Amino acid sequence: MSLIPKIYGSISSTCTQRVLIVLEELGIDYELISINMRAGVQKSPAYLSEHNPFGVIPAYQDTDTKIFESRAICQYLTVKHGGHLTPPSDPVQVAGFYQAASVEYSYFDPPFKQLAYESLFKSMMGHGEPDASLVSIYQDQIRKCLDYYESILDKQDYLGGTTFSLVDSYHMPWIAFMAVLGLSTELESRKHLRAWWERVEARRSWRSVSGKS
Amino acid sequence: MSLIPKIYGSISSTCTQRVLIVLEELGIDYELISINMRAGVQKSPAYLSEHNPFGVIPAYQDTDTKIFESRAICQYLTVKHGGHLTPPSDPVQVAGFYQAASVEYSYFDPPFKQLAYESLFKSMMGHGEPDASLVSIYQDQIRKCLDYYESILDKQDYLGGTTFSLVDSYHMPWIAFMAVLGLSTELESRKHLRAWWERVEARRSWRSVSGKS
Repeated sequence: MSLIPKIYGSISSTCTQRVLIVLEELGIDYELISINMRAGVQKSPAYLSEHNPFGVIPAYQDTDTKIFESRAICQYLTVKHGGHLTPPSDPVQVAGFYQAASVEYSYFDPPFKQLAYESLFKSMMGHGEPDASLVSIYQDQIRKCLDYYESILDKQDYLGGTTFSLVDSYHMPWIAFMAVLGLSTELESRKHLRAWWERVEARRSWRSVSGKS
Repeated sequence: MSLIPKIYGSISSTCTQRVLIVLEELGIDYELISINMRAGVQKSPAYLSEHNPFGVIPAYQDTDTKIFESRAICQYLTVKHGGHLTPPSDPVQVAGFYQAASVEYSYFDPPFKQLAYESLFKSMMGHGEPDASLVSIYQDQIRKCLDYYESILDKQDYLGGTTFSLVDSYHMPWIAFMAVLGLSTELESRKHLRAWWERVEARRSWRSVSGKS
């Protein structure tokens, strides 16, 4: 009997949302198994041995396999199920796609993750007040990356090429979170980035995921 | 006329080495154009506009395309040239491959990069002396990741699956650099990891790249 894919994660986690967008894009039914992060379930011996030895979310399980790391799960899903998110095979398009995926991993995600911790989660977790100099550094890194995206989106409709791809889905959770981080004007002031966001947030996949969070 | 691929980088840079290993594996001739990082050439307006807007090395150029980000260049090369480094197409193998690639990016590379800066390059660059507490944190993160690899390599010969792949090549430059970081015993004390290293460092590609550095 085939197992409905299980996602161990949290609807409020950007990494979990990344996977859910791709499942929704591919029209795959799934079960989201909520991990209580405040209670530290992701660090429990059972979770570490069964799902992810590094103690973070999300983790994925279906009939054939278990896998962790959100972007890896997304790539696995596109290879397993095919469809419109399959990465390009033309070498020039491949270059643009993988370069964009790597820029997300190197220059987009890290300052967002660090800024969210420093300006929000640090005090929520009782680790002290935000360090204003670090907040400023991360904000500058985000601005620089968004400036680059603005130049890319002047030439093409999507971050990884001419069509919606995994690369767009990787970015969407943090872009949606910019309002919470006080960065709304950084989106509004970049017309190509803003137009891209309007295109991608209108997708059924995102409306479904954001409607649950 | 076809252009011999040009790599803008430095033979002593781990990110540049990552690309050179893949070029050597694929038997592709290339020209390494040395970027003087101490003189800040990678931050010059010409380099930023022509090769990499984020001001780091390496960058790649051939007849068809320009691309930056070392792992993206490696993926591009395997799609363009095919051969034994082509990622798997079977979904279960794909899961292992992409999970391993993402673990490298998330848990292996960052503490190595941070440790190298903190314990070596910081004082070389006149930014002050190493912070012992940070050094200890990064060393612990590296140990945890190597423990995970030891468990993986107990079950399979290579980090991304049953055969040598891009994932192995991504790791090799930092593993070779462990001696400089005073971490040799971390390699010697893990028998499966050490056996993996002996397998991969014997490859002609690595002998060629390490012979130049």
